Amino acid sequence: MPVYRLDLAYDGSPFSGYASQVGRRTVQGDLEEALETILKLPLATNVAGRTDAGVHARGQVVSFEAGTAIDTNQLRSSLNGILGPEISVQSVTEAGDGFNARHSARWRRYRYRIDSGLAPDPLTRGFTWHVGRTLDVSAMSATLPAFRGEHDFSAFCRSVDDRSNTRNVEELDLAESGHVIEVWIRANAFCHQMVRSIVGYLYDVGRGFSDGSLVASVLAGRDRSAVATVAPPHGLTLWEVGY
Amino acid sequence: MPVYRLDLAYDGSPFSGYASQVGRRTVQGDLEEALETILKLPLATNVAGRTDAGVHARGQVVSFEAGTAIDTNQLRSSLNGILGPEISVQSVTEAGDGFNARHSARWRRYRYRIDSGLAPDPLTRGFTWHVGRTLDVSAMSATLPAFRGEHDFSAFCRSVDDRSNTRNVEELDLAESGHVIEVWIRANAFCHQMVRSIVGYLYDVGRGFSDGSLVASVLAGRDRSAVATVAPPHGLTLWEVGY
Repeated sequence: MPVYRLDLAYDGSPFSGYASQVGRRTVQGDLEEALETILKLPLATNVAGRTDAGVHARGQVVSFEAGTAIDTNQLRSSLNGILGPEISVQSVTEAGDGFNARHSARWRRYRYRIDSGLAPDPLTRGFTWHVGRTLDVSAMSATLPAFRGEHDFSAFCRSVDDRSNTRNVEELDLAESGHVIEVWIRANAFCHQMVRSIVGYLYDVGRGFSDGSLVASVLAGRDRSAVATVAPPHGLTLWEVGY
Repeated sequence: MPVYRLDLAYDGSPFSGYASQVGRRTVQGDLEEALETILKLPLATNVAGRTDAGVHARGQVVSFEAGTAIDTNQLRSSLNGILGPEISVQSVTEAGDGFNARHSARWRRYRYRIDSGLAPDPLTRGFTWHVGRTLDVSAMSATLPAFRGEHDFSAFCRSVDDRSNTRNVEELDLAESGHVIEVWIRANAFCHQMVRSIVGYLYDVGRGFSDGSLVASVLAGRDRSAVATVAPPHGLTLWEVGY
């Protein structure tokens, strides 16, 4: 059966996250309903990153099997006609046999956007955490090497089960431009709230609340209560998925 | 009397423009009402750029005279407490004698943001014109020199009276990044809808509808009907004012 890949962007603000939940508006719910309306058959989709409520995406990837060949340009256009302006299907393509948006993904890259200016920027406030105070970006940068590489990230995960919390952080960088600080992070996979917990820790270092030299021991301790702050969801955007 | 300067940013979407209008929500209306609530006296403000309905600002400047000395940090904080999230007062400072946000300004810089991707980006759609087609950026760029410098811009102005439409375009550049094209323009001043008319012309050149080599003759003709397209307001942001 042919497998199709959807690349989509969304404004997470109005959604209770990506994954379907009864009685709530979700990205998956809107998307599958639109697909079923157009294709007139029930579908099971897979997704690269199950983003939390309020988290945005620029390069989310979804896949599904269809019993029949689909006109991909027509489907993209029909989906964008049905879906609200908060979801935008950038492309629909036929993927190779066995492609699965979740299991085939080699890495995910996220951006977290912080504004340290006194007053928020009205144009970017929907996808930016306005912290409203000066942060010590040098101190924040100095902690990055300790996060990079393969670690048990249990201290930075909201655990939901007993699965391993070992992940490989392949890139972690800060980019500063005026009042804006962007945290860019790429890993093979992320446990729940991992990016927001790492950003929360960086923020605590930047405001002098936490000691950046302790990252290695916090990781080793695997104790979630050592991480005081979880950054809010609206600053986070799933940027790109690698296959 | 001391003169105060406010630097503010706003999301123009919910406003019927900057300038006060009876029965409509405007930036000036919201701002002056908040100032009068806090300072408990009626005020007349001056503004650097009277933006149209739907146009945004990152670096708008407003000034007013006050009969008494004001605690500037307190005023900034009080204003941000009263104003909705669509307006953000970045700073309040005491300006020199005779400072007038409108008359003292030497130049204004605007950004116009175009997205030529097939589908809009949900996170930036509020401040981006999604044209949804590939544009010939080389052809657009080739027209820029003809706009630069001092010209009578009557063909690119929505005339409202008989004042001169001569303006000096000090900078005009295109920046392309992926699907996004930013038009940056700086001039001593702008006549009504001048940026949006220039961008509309550039767009018509980019889609092969207008001949870019005709800019000089269109300027010389001073005939507004020669400019077919006015770009929509939501892609435009007043970026910075120079004094």
